Amino acid sequence: MRNLKVIIEYDGTNYFGFQAQKNPYLPTIQDTLEELLSKLAKEPIQVTVAGRTDAGVHASGQVINFRTNWTIPVDRVVLAMNSGGLPRDIVAREAEEVPLDFHARFDAKEKIYCYNIYNSRIPSAFHQRYSHFVPQRLDINKMAVSSKYLLGTHDFSAFKATGSTVKNNIRTIYEAGVKADGPLITITLRGNGFLYNMVRIIAGTLIEVGRGKLQPDDLAEIIASRDRTLAGITAPAQGLCLERVIY
Amino acid sequence: MRNLKVIIEYDGTNYFGFQAQKNPYLPTIQDTLEELLSKLAKEPIQVTVAGRTDAGVHASGQVINFRTNWTIPVDRVVLAMNSGGLPRDIVAREAEEVPLDFHARFDAKEKIYCYNIYNSRIPSAFHQRYSHFVPQRLDINKMAVSSKYLLGTHDFSAFKATGSTVKNNIRTIYEAGVKADGPLITITLRGNGFLYNMVRIIAGTLIEVGRGKLQPDDLAEIIASRDRTLAGITAPAQGLCLERVIY
Repeated sequence: MRNLKVIIEYDGTNYFGFQAQKNPYLPTIQDTLEELLSKLAKEPIQVTVAGRTDAGVHASGQVINFRTNWTIPVDRVVLAMNSGGLPRDIVAREAEEVPLDFHARFDAKEKIYCYNIYNSRIPSAFHQRYSHFVPQRLDINKMAVSSKYLLGTHDFSAFKATGSTVKNNIRTIYEAGVKADGPLITITLRGNGFLYNMVRIIAGTLIEVGRGKLQPDDLAEIIASRDRTLAGITAPAQGLCLERVIY
Repeated sequence: MRNLKVIIEYDGTNYFGFQAQKNPYLPTIQDTLEELLSKLAKEPIQVTVAGRTDAGVHASGQVINFRTNWTIPVDRVVLAMNSGGLPRDIVAREAEEVPLDFHARFDAKEKIYCYNIYNSRIPSAFHQRYSHFVPQRLDINKMAVSSKYLLGTHDFSAFKATGSTVKNNIRTIYEAGVKADGPLITITLRGNGFLYNMVRIIAGTLIEVGRGKLQPDDLAEIIASRDRTLAGITAPAQGLCLERVIY
């Protein structure tokens, strides 16, 4: 028995999120990976994932691990997966052998998420799958200033999906920034954990700042209020990407 | 009666090419545009296109024109189209009114095509729709040197799909280059016209040069030979993009 850790990249557009669903007709990333790995390893494989992304959300650095008796040399796992029948929108990037007690979710120390906005009068046929189209002009400087209020340890209840039953809403954000590359605006957040929909609600709120509907300083008040109704909308799934998980 | 010219961008992945097919169950860009425009203009619209792209080929600067009695102000055509029911993988970028005798194909003086290669040991889930994945290391300098033999006026029969019945195979290439941006290699060609599959066969041939299977100088001989069998394979459709049409 060994434990393999694999970094996975995927275009989430055509999947009902990472996690296997009760309805077998809803394809998920987990189903796809487990089906392939079970075939390759010739035994039933169950994967553990670092971050259960929602339907339509992407990942360039998702992490999974699974215990297996598969005897493949670790440096051939990536090629075996990519040439073994993964659809083209899911790619294995790196594999390593880890201690038997390594757990992709519980051992994650930090995660980096990006939220991509396509800010132009005209949408883009090529970026539409990977970004949220905002036709109103956004003030990137205001968004960047505003994002700094997120830094540090806070109760982020204002940025938690209503309905989420998580009790401890305190998280620490180590890095928060907003950068533009032509019409593409990227919000980057690195933290020790994120509440349900937290990045998408932060993105929705920073977009309000960019549009001038909120002032940069308002972020401090919204955080302090712990009131979900003061923050912006939950920005759509396709702008979100799990970039990296740090152990 | 007026004549409208519209620049169109599309992700061709889900379409059976630009041109309407006899089989109505094969969606094409032309069908999609004509259906929308006919609905908006409240009369049957037939579009003329600059370059009939094949199934899976993309365009960031395709040009169409159509004659219509539609009275919409020209500066509202783009918004009307983009918000009027175009799928998200087709976008109208610019519209202008042109003389009644303007013809998107016959009046085109030059076209710019790009061919995108994703050159990395590991494929990319995000670039797979818009590039051709080549895992073998490519020598970009050799490819760039080689591309210069294409410049000027030549009989390009060696780079024409077998089966094409076009008689005059002489075309002029004004610009030919190869550039890399990380793992993404882009071949750019600007010419007064292109034979059927010409850019994809050139791409397939330059990839052979990049892999060392052909020498840069071989391009001169292949062009002179007018022999399709000496050139490389037809590189796959998803790497090709019609960037711009010049009038």
